[in-house]
Amino acid sequence: MNPVDIIVKKRDGYELTRQEIDFFVQGLTAGRIPDYQVAAWAMAVYFRGMTDRETTNLTLSMAASGDQFDLHDVLPPGTVIVDKHSSGGVGDKTTLAVGPIVAACGLPVGKMSGRGLSFTGGTIDKLESIPGWSAELTEEQFRHQLRTIGLVVAAQTTNLAPADKVLYPLRDVTGTVPSLPLIASSIMSKKLAAGADAIVLDVKCGHGAFMETLDEARALSRLMVAIGNLAGRKSTALITQMEQPLGQAVGNALEVKEAIDTLRGAGPADFQELVETVAGEMLLIAGAAHTAGEAQQRVTTAIQSGAALQKFAAFVAAQGGDAGVVDDPTLLPAAPVRVTVPAKKEGFVHAIDARAIGLTVVALGGGRQKKGEAIDPRVGVMVAAKVGDRVRRDSTLCTVHAADAAAADAVIERLQDAYTIGMEPVAALPIVLDRITGDR
Amino acid sequence: MNPVDIIVKKRDGYELTRQEIDFFVQGLTAGRIPDYQVAAWAMAVYFRGMTDRETTNLTLSMAASGDQFDLHDVLPPGTVIVDKHSSGGVGDKTTLAVGPIVAACGLPVGKMSGRGLSFTGGTIDKLESIPGWSAELTEEQFRHQLRTIGLVVAAQTTNLAPADKVLYPLRDVTGTVPSLPLIASSIMSKKLAAGADAIVLDVKCGHGAFMETLDEARALSRLMVAIGNLAGRKSTALITQMEQPLGQAVGNALEVKEAIDTLRGAGPADFQELVETVAGEMLLIAGAAHTAGEAQQRVTTAIQSGAALQKFAAFVAAQGGDAGVVDDPTLLPAAPVRVTVPAKKEGFVHAIDARAIGLTVVALGGGRQKKGEAIDPRVGVMVAAKVGDRVRRDSTLCTVHAADAAAADAVIERLQDAYTIGMEPVAALPIVLDRITGDR
Repeated sequence: MNPVDIIVKKRDGYELTRQEIDFFVQGLTAGRIPDYQVAAWAMAVYFRGMTDRETTNLTLSMAASGDQFDLHDVLPPGTVIVDKHSSGGVGDKTTLAVGPIVAACGLPVGKMSGRGLSFTGGTIDKLESIPGWSAELTEEQFRHQLRTIGLVVAAQTTNLAPADKVLYPLRDVTGTVPSLPLIASSIMSKKLAAGADAIVLDVKCGHGAFMETLDEARALSRLMVAIGNLAGRKSTALITQMEQPLGQAVGNALEVKEAIDTLRGAGPADFQELVETVAGEMLLIAGAAHTAGEAQQRVTTAIQSGAALQKFAAFVAAQGGDAGVVDDPTLLPAAPVRVTVPAKKEGFVHAIDARAIGLTVVALGGGRQKKGEAIDPRVGVMVAAKVGDRVRRDSTLCTVHAADAAAADAVIERLQDAYTIGMEPVAALPIVLDRITGDR
Repeated sequence: MNPVDIIVKKRDGYELTRQEIDFFVQGLTAGRIPDYQVAAWAMAVYFRGMTDRETTNLTLSMAASGDQFDLHDVLPPGTVIVDKHSSGGVGDKTTLAVGPIVAACGLPVGKMSGRGLSFTGGTIDKLESIPGWSAELTEEQFRHQLRTIGLVVAAQTTNLAPADKVLYPLRDVTGTVPSLPLIASSIMSKKLAAGADAIVLDVKCGHGAFMETLDEARALSRLMVAIGNLAGRKSTALITQMEQPLGQAVGNALEVKEAIDTLRGAGPADFQELVETVAGEMLLIAGAAHTAGEAQQRVTTAIQSGAALQKFAAFVAAQGGDAGVVDDPTLLPAAPVRVTVPAKKEGFVHAIDARAIGLTVVALGGGRQKKGEAIDPRVGVMVAAKVGDRVRRDSTLCTVHAADAAAADAVIERLQDAYTIGMEPVAALPIVLDRITGDR
């Protein structure tokens, strides 16, 4: 086989075979196929697309390019391993609350997660704001904790889907990022390699997400669900709203605190609803509940009984963290300066630019502009007024948590500008926009 | 400016500006823009195409990426410098005969030419079969000979359109060869840099050429003529037939001898007609004749008077060659073994696979498989029976000129297989298929 022939076949709109895709993916992973051929192929994929079968083969091949985990041996026979993936958004601390609820319902959750870049934060960055907590686990530790606690979050090993580590940065510099087969295979290859039997996809949609329209989000969701099902992993996608920050907290320690509140049932309405919906979907897809109603009942029980919060505390302690934060959030690092951001005029909040809020938190030091940068866990923004809320002149839109007064002052106008305030009343935004299953 | 933005703009179907194209071409020439971005851009161009203006800007930018020659200072004021380009075919020794005719009519011809690769030979390889002849000229020697003899053929300097030296091999390995804007700009950038005021394009069409159909050849011709005219160089394209080898001789010394015969008016019918048509077109486009009839009359006179042959002899001598070959072709290197290839059955020649004949000559040692390989000027094939000819069983289809008997024997069956012989009479193939001018 020859890389050029594969590029030409895709260029001319034909479906690549599993063998051709394996040859290409193995070649690019090993560096035998040079970047310029990968780039030309990616652009041909951008223009020609791929069939579901072809995208599934690409995903399986990328998953097989590195380590593939099978965690069933540490779990009781017949256990279904369920995973969730969020496509990333501002204030998205869903995993922090969903994981303990699902684990409290008896389903093991073992996640390998990444760090954040630009305006979306990473789950591990958030958890690292808990004093002592560490994501650096050996595979043995990971397996032990999954068996004993049923909940683990570890830093992604460097050899999970290494083909994606070649493709992803190359797409960024060759104008081939917005190709659905390439986006879907990038996400799903890591899920498959991590060993999930069932996957719930939380596809964010709106101006604070990579998919800005419902049509785009539906297309990506359908494709990822098709890949999951063709690869033998039960998959469902929820399309969820990301027109404004999720919940109130944006910033690492602030988000941990909000997740803890939510595990008590006292989270902000939109975030509480999202967490309970995603958790219920995970129970349903794993067969731990037979109807949506039963799933929601189990979720409610896990929260109200305190089982979910206990599971979170046990998980934090198992990874070296101070479990006291669960009962005393003042043990979390806190910013020395808090400044409220006043509304400039009276009216109704029509829109909040989630991306602008996310970038403001980066500017405060709470996120990274470049890989490897240190972040300040204390800082962030607490969003008080959300879309649909009525505000008066000078009432609080949000609160800045900053390292010093100068840093806070520097972002106040940006935060005011992130709000669109109009005279007409508008409805609050729904959080779950659509649900895509393999049955459609 | 940013290379990714330019890739994305082209990917999305927009016309690139002159500034954007200059930035991209200068960047790729200097190595500032890496191969993978050039590859992604080339694939986007493949899918989206380019407007005539955009392709012209690309061509001008590529021409400006290296040395640009202006030879007017060595010529009488008002002299129009005319050049021809052939898109390459089997047995294509057109330049060898056209150049002396046009020069004999008083139009200076200064060509920079390349060496051959694969099944198409190169003009310089052919001329180098003349003992002593050399293509290695300094710019000063080139200018002197253009002024004194009016005919020069030199090896292409390494700094003519260096952008093409990056793009061309990259296209080959990224599936982006068959893009009309990239093909046309590759050809025309070198013509513009070489300093021609007027250009006659001989676009080969058929199974022995890169353009296999008349539609493809017309599209490429129209585009190259448009580029030439938009760049201020008068341009005309002739689409000429390459379904079978051109003339009879395929092989370096054999082709030189056939060119000499043609300069005497005694070439094979198809080649003689092509040479006279191209030469007449060059006189016409340069304004050295006012009507096609006048142009053909001047060509006929140059041949019949012996002026064209004398010009060839002077040109050979000026570049160190043995001009005696003009009167005594036995001074050219000759193969020790000649073997006739008999027809396997009676009938009419329906087709000759020109590419197979070309590859046979490569196999005999008369062409290169890789850049830099030495070639044997003596070997080749003389095509006796052409399309439309009637053959009897065992009558001669062609004659192999080989270095030894084993080499000849090894190709006889391939040559027989290159012929398609059928029972129904077929017409001889026309040589000039179409003429594309800027007026259309």
